[in-house]
Amino acid sequence: MEVKEVKKYAADISSIKEAHKRINSYIHKTPVLSSESLNAISGRSLFFKCECFQKGGAFKFRGACNAVLSLDDDQAAKGVVTHSSGNHAAALSLAARLRGIPAYIAVPKNAPKCKVENVMRYGGQVIWSEVTMQSRESVASKVLQETGAVLLHPYNDGRIISGQGTISLELLEQVPQLDCIIVPISGGGLISGVALAAKSINPAIRILAAEPVGANDAAQSKAAGRIITLPETSTVADGLRAFLGDLTWPVVRDFVDDVITVEDKQIIEAMRLCYEILKVAIEPSGAIGLAAVLSNSFRNNPTWQDCKNVGIILSGGNVDLGVLWDSFRK
Amino acid sequence: MEVKEVKKYAADISSIKEAHKRINSYIHKTPVLSSESLNAISGRSLFFKCECFQKGGAFKFRGACNAVLSLDDDQAAKGVVTHSSGNHAAALSLAARLRGIPAYIAVPKNAPKCKVENVMRYGGQVIWSEVTMQSRESVASKVLQETGAVLLHPYNDGRIISGQGTISLELLEQVPQLDCIIVPISGGGLISGVALAAKSINPAIRILAAEPVGANDAAQSKAAGRIITLPETSTVADGLRAFLGDLTWPVVRDFVDDVITVEDKQIIEAMRLCYEILKVAIEPSGAIGLAAVLSNSFRNNPTWQDCKNVGIILSGGNVDLGVLWDSFRK
Repeated sequence: MEVKEVKKYAADISSIKEAHKRINSYIHKTPVLSSESLNAISGRSLFFKCECFQKGGAFKFRGACNAVLSLDDDQAAKGVVTHSSGNHAAALSLAARLRGIPAYIAVPKNAPKCKVENVMRYGGQVIWSEVTMQSRESVASKVLQETGAVLLHPYNDGRIISGQGTISLELLEQVPQLDCIIVPISGGGLISGVALAAKSINPAIRILAAEPVGANDAAQSKAAGRIITLPETSTVADGLRAFLGDLTWPVVRDFVDDVITVEDKQIIEAMRLCYEILKVAIEPSGAIGLAAVLSNSFRNNPTWQDCKNVGIILSGGNVDLGVLWDSFRK
Repeated sequence: MEVKEVKKYAADISSIKEAHKRINSYIHKTPVLSSESLNAISGRSLFFKCECFQKGGAFKFRGACNAVLSLDDDQAAKGVVTHSSGNHAAALSLAARLRGIPAYIAVPKNAPKCKVENVMRYGGQVIWSEVTMQSRESVASKVLQETGAVLLHPYNDGRIISGQGTISLELLEQVPQLDCIIVPISGGGLISGVALAAKSINPAIRILAAEPVGANDAAQSKAAGRIITLPETSTVADGLRAFLGDLTWPVVRDFVDDVITVEDKQIIEAMRLCYEILKVAIEPSGAIGLAAVLSNSFRNNPTWQDCKNVGIILSGGNVDLGVLWDSFRK
């Protein structure tokens, strides 16, 4: 009997490099912006990886594209299904359209308007659910049964994680001197891919998660040494309300150096700085990395004093302008 | 008696290449963004040169930096003066700070708040004027007399034109296949530099000016074959209210293929598309190129049918968020 080698993590540098080959001609190689004004405010050199300029307005297209292109023809024929607050849904719709297959999307009723419009713009079929994760998952599995389509989870999937990891391949080529990368954390797909690739390229680089206080399951999980989920979440960052999965948790446990939690008001201030200084539209989830680097808990922690060159992933830009303006006025 | 060769234009490809060497380590090489959604809407391949991400939030830093660094030490010592609706003022303040000299700025009372804040952020000394060009010029010349500083005109200056022309050196390296470039026109400094450099690199490339109907002096000047100024202007594009100067007019006359005029509502719609699809904050003046490429006068003109690859200069991103939101709601 052959003994199969058990892979310890859902992705690795080879699967991430394969993903990059697979998706490279479909994605945008997003630019890195910098600002002397923000460097002065933070006391570091900040390098903003602008995934808000990715297709669909968020990093999610990398993973969705990799997953959809990884399916064999028989699997793909009946289409794909997911549940999502919006960015994965739009990304999956776009990836499915590229491949010429249907995408069925269970969308919670409270998803931001611009994200749902993106799904529709890319030809995804919206099926509304209640806002709870339970409802989202049950609506998705009903569609699954009816259509025979393939479920592509927003983050707890090795193909998704590998796709998101391609960000690090680009970023460390664009800015090789990074000491650390700050990454928004929600279900953990983005940070898992980013951490696995970055630490494989440069084992000395440090990976920091940024998380809202009102959805701090990753900070709690790291402290407890096991996955903690929360009875409810409360944060302006609609993209950061998911919990770690069984495939992302081991990567977060082993490769994420620390979690910085920030208040919603810090997120909103970071959105303002992104708009006013960087001239970039950033959704709350996308701005949390800047909020983290400006937070006192990061500034005053001696562990991070020598992180001079800081990569910050601006993960997405899908924010309704009226919502942005309202949040600034509060 | 020696006969001096009279230069026909205030700048040329050599002065632009010299400018690029002079300013290259101080400016951002701005990225070029593209969007399949906007390609589909316009029926062309659009390449957005994002000068909104230039230092100070607009292309103006290129020219100001070149002019300030071109001064000899004696000239520079007493500082620089200008009058500006804001972007040149902020750019000059920043360039002066780099050189360690004072910048005196005559700012009209109606200048956008964020632009005046930029001047102050970069250490420029604001001297308020009335909104008319006459008042702006007279305030500037009073400061000139009092300080002995050097006047640096916002556009009617070969050093400024050469600095702005460096955009074409970058853009045609980033996207060599461009058939035409659409450029906002106001005083003509930007388009003069862009046209001189681009047509020197690729004589077949076409240069189109984009101008608001309510400040259409360039369109009128091209039609009349001489500089036309207007008794007043009326447009949301606060950066496009100036008139051609005696150094920019000959370049516009000889190197600009046509002028497209657009309504303010088209400019506002273009700002919305920039925000919602490109995820970029663009001021009205900056969005006019996109408005032009989407206008019926451009779409339906057979002359431009074969312009498949279109460069669009997003010239600046300094727009107060509240003003942006108000303009969308109207």
